[in-house]
Amino acid sequence: MNSDSFKPLLKIFNAKNWFSQVLQSKWLSKFVPQIKKAPLKLPAPTDIQDQKVPKQYQNHPCPSYMALKMRFRDIGRMNGIVEALGRDFLTAMPEGAYVSRLGQIAFLSRRMHEDLANKDVAEHIEKAHAHQRKNKKDWDEWDSSNLYEMEIMYRHHCRIDPDLVEKSAKLSYEGRRHHREVLKNNDWKSAKVFLQEMVDLKRQIAKSKCLKDNAHKTDSTYQALMREYIPGARLEDIDQLFDDYKEGLDALLPKILKKQKETESAEVLKGPFLSDLQLWLNKSLLKVLGFDFERGGLYETGHNPVEGGTPDDTRLVIKTSAENDFLESMKSALHEGGHGIYIQGLPRQEWRYQPVGQDLGAAVQESQALLVEMILGREKEFFEYLSPRVEGLFQKFGDSSLSAENLHALKTRVTVGPDRKSSHEVSYFYHIHMRMELERDLIAGRLSVDDLPKAWNEKTKEFCGEEPIDYAHGCLQDVHWFVGKFGYYPSYVIGHMMAAQLYEAMKRDIQNIPELLRAGQFTPIKDWLNDNIHAKGRLLRSDKLIEEVTGKPLSCKPLLNHLEDRYLNAA
Amino acid sequence: MNSDSFKPLLKIFNAKNWFSQVLQSKWLSKFVPQIKKAPLKLPAPTDIQDQKVPKQYQNHPCPSYMALKMRFRDIGRMNGIVEALGRDFLTAMPEGAYVSRLGQIAFLSRRMHEDLANKDVAEHIEKAHAHQRKNKKDWDEWDSSNLYEMEIMYRHHCRIDPDLVEKSAKLSYEGRRHHREVLKNNDWKSAKVFLQEMVDLKRQIAKSKCLKDNAHKTDSTYQALMREYIPGARLEDIDQLFDDYKEGLDALLPKILKKQKETESAEVLKGPFLSDLQLWLNKSLLKVLGFDFERGGLYETGHNPVEGGTPDDTRLVIKTSAENDFLESMKSALHEGGHGIYIQGLPRQEWRYQPVGQDLGAAVQESQALLVEMILGREKEFFEYLSPRVEGLFQKFGDSSLSAENLHALKTRVTVGPDRKSSHEVSYFYHIHMRMELERDLIAGRLSVDDLPKAWNEKTKEFCGEEPIDYAHGCLQDVHWFVGKFGYYPSYVIGHMMAAQLYEAMKRDIQNIPELLRAGQFTPIKDWLNDNIHAKGRLLRSDKLIEEVTGKPLSCKPLLNHLEDRYLNAA
Repeated sequence: MNSDSFKPLLKIFNAKNWFSQVLQSKWLSKFVPQIKKAPLKLPAPTDIQDQKVPKQYQNHPCPSYMALKMRFRDIGRMNGIVEALGRDFLTAMPEGAYVSRLGQIAFLSRRMHEDLANKDVAEHIEKAHAHQRKNKKDWDEWDSSNLYEMEIMYRHHCRIDPDLVEKSAKLSYEGRRHHREVLKNNDWKSAKVFLQEMVDLKRQIAKSKCLKDNAHKTDSTYQALMREYIPGARLEDIDQLFDDYKEGLDALLPKILKKQKETESAEVLKGPFLSDLQLWLNKSLLKVLGFDFERGGLYETGHNPVEGGTPDDTRLVIKTSAENDFLESMKSALHEGGHGIYIQGLPRQEWRYQPVGQDLGAAVQESQALLVEMILGREKEFFEYLSPRVEGLFQKFGDSSLSAENLHALKTRVTVGPDRKSSHEVSYFYHIHMRMELERDLIAGRLSVDDLPKAWNEKTKEFCGEEPIDYAHGCLQDVHWFVGKFGYYPSYVIGHMMAAQLYEAMKRDIQNIPELLRAGQFTPIKDWLNDNIHAKGRLLRSDKLIEEVTGKPLSCKPLLNHLEDRYLNAA
Repeated sequence: MNSDSFKPLLKIFNAKNWFSQVLQSKWLSKFVPQIKKAPLKLPAPTDIQDQKVPKQYQNHPCPSYMALKMRFRDIGRMNGIVEALGRDFLTAMPEGAYVSRLGQIAFLSRRMHEDLANKDVAEHIEKAHAHQRKNKKDWDEWDSSNLYEMEIMYRHHCRIDPDLVEKSAKLSYEGRRHHREVLKNNDWKSAKVFLQEMVDLKRQIAKSKCLKDNAHKTDSTYQALMREYIPGARLEDIDQLFDDYKEGLDALLPKILKKQKETESAEVLKGPFLSDLQLWLNKSLLKVLGFDFERGGLYETGHNPVEGGTPDDTRLVIKTSAENDFLESMKSALHEGGHGIYIQGLPRQEWRYQPVGQDLGAAVQESQALLVEMILGREKEFFEYLSPRVEGLFQKFGDSSLSAENLHALKTRVTVGPDRKSSHEVSYFYHIHMRMELERDLIAGRLSVDDLPKAWNEKTKEFCGEEPIDYAHGCLQDVHWFVGKFGYYPSYVIGHMMAAQLYEAMKRDIQNIPELLRAGQFTPIKDWLNDNIHAKGRLLRSDKLIEEVTGKPLSCKPLLNHLEDRYLNAA
């Protein structure tokens, strides 16, 4: 073969010169196309997935409302993307992608914020309200609530500087990793610097929030943060609920501890329980709960677990299981499972991405998680279902520590100590209460980050009887502040109260809950939750919803009754 | 405990009425905040990760260029997000998330397009060019190339309707799944409808492309599509290269086949080769190649594999391995590994997300993949490294089918038949050539989708000697058209030519390649590719790069020489 048979390449890539010439002539700007702007555009027919048009795409006589629906669909899509990136971050992403992924998430959070906190959104909301006043018949309860929730979202965002939003998104992901490190190394020095930055940022954000309640000057910034998790809540009302509950619990706890002393202590578990089998067990229990694995999954992570996801893609994440105690990972799985069936039960077909199709915030989320984990998941009958099956799964026939009675005894043994995660249905409140007081003081500026460890230790002594042994078991034990969740803690207690009150109502409607649990038949329970809570999205505010479902306003009484029944009255 | 000790909830959630009152007063629009617009903003100090400021964040005296750098950073971030979503789509996403994920990806693709095809980008490019003409010393070769590539990207996008971009993104993901189904069911009827929609869409997009070359009227739309993969290439030059190569190959093939007939045929592999072990082998070979698992990984999928990812997050995806033949999955892993080390070797620290920091398009991508897979990965010495290790890994000491000679013989056995994937280094060209002709005719409107199977079968007979047995083994065998990759095929052949020409130059610079392969020491080879190709990003256009590295313009001669050496001259 000789070289003549091959011609040299005939300047294949000659575009560069051509461009340069064109540019001299200033041709480029004449060239600018008529780009259609995406904002506030009606959907193309291909966006409509189902034969039956989902309500969010149904025509509405108010053009501003139609435009808002499209805008919030796109914001919802961005949020769904951030959720997917977050799951990937925790479960699959290679370590080296950390920095660029932070940038991507922060960037997208900013874009989402800019789309929402936009003048045209305010104008459309005003026009839609005007339309609603004049044409009441065009606005059913779903559309009305949707518009209302759009406004709430707008108000939550409209005054916050996009730079703060971007920084907040970035810091919260950094914080997750930072927390893992400082916890491992008991490293308060490094934690302090990070927490200071986070507290400063959160105070700035709280101050720019629209919903300042001037009646509560000192703690108004804290209230603004708390309302991200319990929308519309007033701090003084939360305080009242806490006070009432504390009064009842302070009276109850000594009696419970006294009774426990008189009872034989439970037998500890004899591991190992292979991790793979634990994961299998946890997945299987989620199936029993009715969690749909076609639209989600259960994953393990070296990070702290997170709640969240979307109804179409609900990936639950729990911490990698420890081989000596399967009840630990099961607890997490049941907790996340409660979140999971709530998320999956939201009205996704009709209201995907629309504000009215979303969950009611952290307090109601926690009510669903705690109802499954702490209330249903600790009923004696649940352990009657579980016991023979774990004997088989872990190949420990006849192991007395796996009897239903012993498992139940293990999970209902009340302990009081400085560790929140190993704390108990009864003593949990004290951990939350002290954290709420501390974060309030941090945000109000009454407590400096420098003084946090001292204050933490004193509070722990006061609330839980003894001081923690070090930072890692003390003020560094929780991830919440590191991911910026100041104002989240009250949701646990309010959610716990909601859970007990809902359970009371559920028992009124479903007579045979013990039998159902014993048989592992969760369907009627899930259906009840679906119908009464999940499928309603944000049609009602949480206070109204609780009142409608249970027949009375939220109080701590059902929770106190539940604890009394389980820990004092039971045989 | 009696009910008096619990007060009913004191209207915790009383915000609704308050809002309604406020709204009556039209207060909302006065309330509109001064939102800073994100576009074209300079970076906050927190964006700068390294002590040494990456070049993309270094100050530049031209403000328009600075603004462009920020815009393209954000476009790059969105692209990185789409890549991460795409990986998740293939490897982890629950099935039920399919519809909503399609919407999210399509939406983000649209946003990316709108950010790019924007009037302000054109204006900034013009201003930057003006600055460049007046201040040559401020523009080094990297910044100049970056600006040039910005313009190319702008021109590729500026005239395309965002609706088409959104539809294209959605269809290409739908197509991946659609292809899997029609392939399984040999279902031409359903495939036809989908392909028709895709061809129509791609013709529309091609027609709106800026880069119409009116000198080539008939195939100008095809050329516009092809230039997505081989930027700036002219179809007539590609044709010339194809013609030259075909002439040489047509003469070579009969001689090779004749020689093969005279040689003993290779011994077939005796499986099973456990899937888990194959995955371990493939990961280990990637480590040998120098692929960095800190910034990437290797995954299996039920879908077709995809190339891509970003330098920070390079997740390679191959098809789930078949247990009877580890050479199949190894072939994919080496191919994707070639892509992978290219992507990871791009100048990410200095030029992350900037156009000049990206790869040079599909042809150069394929050159890197085929150099590893088809050229290096079939050298005799590579099998000398591999053979004893697979004997150990698969626990088959003394299995003669695993000898270096036999593995080499298996991988260099030339077959000619209607299946592209099982085709061979020598016969591969014919498959590509016939596909290129068919897709050109489809896009030009000379061939209707209805007539595709007939035309496919005829071409296969003409180019590969026999007709396929059914649709699945015929015109449905490849995923490319289903994901909208019309104009991609030529990249395989051009990439193959580049690979052979680069290998020639590499052998000139590295004398002991056989010894290196035999010892599994790939580092000098990877370093050479890093220095000469990967680290240069888009500093040079591909034709210039090939000429600079190899000392001559691209031609098919090195490839023909390589084939002649390996298949005719070798002992």
